[in-house]
Amino acid sequence: MKEPDALDVTVAEVNAFAAEQLPFSVELGLTCESLGPDEAVVRWRFDRRWTRPVDYVSGPVMMAMADLAVYVATFTRGGIVALALTNELKTTFLRPAASRQDLLCRARILKRGRKVLYGLADVYEESAPERLVAQATATYVVAGEPGDTGVDR
Amino acid sequence: MKEPDALDVTVAEVNAFAAEQLPFSVELGLTCESLGPDEAVVRWRFDRRWTRPVDYVSGPVMMAMADLAVYVATFTRGGIVALALTNELKTTFLRPAASRQDLLCRARILKRGRKVLYGLADVYEESAPERLVAQATATYVVAGEPGDTGVDR
Amino acid sequence: MKEPDALDVTVAEVNAFAAEQLPFSVELGLTCESLGPDEAVVRWRFDRRWTRPVDYVSGPVMMAMADLAVYVATFTRGGIVALALTNELKTTFLRPAASRQDLLCRARILKRGRKVLYGLADVYEESAPERLVAQATATYVVAGEPGDTGVDR
Amino acid sequence: MKEPDALDVTVAEVNAFAAEQLPFSVELGLTCESLGPDEAVVRWRFDRRWTRPVDYVSGPVMMAMADLAVYVATFTRGGIVALALTNELKTTFLRPAASRQDLLCRARILKRGRKVLYGLADVYEESAPERLVAQATATYVVAGEPGDTGVDR
Repeated sequence: MKEPDALDVTVAEVNAFAAEQLPFSVELGLTCESLGPDEAVVRWRFDRRWTRPVDYVSGPVMMAMADLAVYVATFTRGGIVALALTNELKTTFLRPAASRQDLLCRARILKRGRKVLYGLADVYEESAPERLVAQATATYVVAGEPGDTGVDR
Repeated sequence: MKEPDALDVTVAEVNAFAAEQLPFSVELGLTCESLGPDEAVVRWRFDRRWTRPVDYVSGPVMMAMADLAVYVATFTRGGIVALALTNELKTTFLRPAASRQDLLCRARILKRGRKVLYGLADVYEESAPERLVAQATATYVVAGEPGDTGVDR
Repeated sequence: MKEPDALDVTVAEVNAFAAEQLPFSVELGLTCESLGPDEAVVRWRFDRRWTRPVDYVSGPVMMAMADLAVYVATFTRGGIVALALTNELKTTFLRPAASRQDLLCRARILKRGRKVLYGLADVYEESAPERLVAQATATYVVAGEPGDTGVDR
Repeated sequence: MKEPDALDVTVAEVNAFAAEQLPFSVELGLTCESLGPDEAVVRWRFDRRWTRPVDYVSGPVMMAMADLAVYVATFTRGGIVALALTNELKTTFLRPAASRQDLLCRARILKRGRKVLYGLADVYEESAPERLVAQATATYVVAGEPGDTGVDR
């Protein structure tokens, strides 16, 4: 990812926001790993609480990763907009994630409209970035304004 | 729901299976509530761990409900098939679920093919079954055989 | 469907609009069949030009039906809004439509937001309304205002 | 695209197959433009019959392009399989295609399972390949066997 200086948000700011506003992300073990223009990478720390026997990562973990990664990627231009809302998210599960390692999800924003944003998210095991385990597409509705973090509303 | 006697699985069997094979469902607070022919209802017990400030139920909870409800509904004809796998799931979020109550998700199987199954899932707050907060569609790939619970594989 | 008198548009108005603004619908053989509150039914006249050997109705015909039916259903409250735009549409194909008859598509609007609308559309052969051949979900972005037919823009 | 020699089908074979088996593609003005390993590009020849006033390409054209492009891309390994069936297709419309030019759709197969295939399709105007006008994801069910062209069934 290029030009991190030009971004309107930092990884630390995103993770502080998540800690305050997105407690389920913390609970699931999700953190923002890196940011780029219209891009974000989210990490899921391997944890047997969220796997199925034997060690298959459950689908909802990947859906939550995709939802968070696209959401965070929208922050990279315009800053944190707490009130952006997921309109719809479709995830296709391509292969089992069964090798007991962290997952990463890279999301890219492909459309920024005044009303809706659209992103594509790839989920993969850390050791095999080219071998997707899931792919998701999502639309967000722009419900808030830049700078409105939602914290005090 | 009609003819519960004719079903190939009971609510108790489903919840026992979930406890053993789907630990993340237990962790999220999901249980099977009722079953009918090609239908299942899943309950999410309200829990602030999975809400966003202030008390909005997070999207991944609803996606997990839909995934579980469609999966369980497939069991009602043919019994528990542990190896049925989610191929894809699309969820549209219609309204905030913000009234601090349990959510229910009713799934119906609309197609049973030899290779794929398709279901529609409605998510609503317990007090307002007609006012959907989310709707999902999902395809499952039939990877296992009836009677194969996957438990000892 | 109930209370047709209360609707903000008639079948004739919809078909006149389609003739002027949606020439591809005419070309495909699609017409609005009936309207209800937040509902619309679209008919596809059987035509071998749009089938695959031997007589399977092609998927794009059903996707076009769903797109049109949801769009038209949005008109039933507020009138024709030419600038409502399809944001996304997902169609699942459930069974072949191969019995050489007209198809119908019934769409229902499940959410009317200020920015987005969401609908569910069922496609079936005329003689078997309970046996869906396809089901679609779609989101529209509200780009125009009621009364703006787009005709003279 | 690389190694065209290694493909199990040629552009000419695909277009001959389409002419015989997919008459609606011909009617819409769709042709296969190029092939690569697990990839296909489909062209839509600009034609006012399929636009909305003034000159907006209608959504069903893009959905048909995506459906055809993913389908054809599946042929590049294993050859033409007439009985592969679209299970589901989701298209998100990102920007109007309104500059009166041909559209191209590039599809890539991201998963080849024994039962299902998954592809991602990008639609763009010929002069602006980086500016997507639509993006689609689709799952196909493998219903036939390699070499079964379906022509004589």
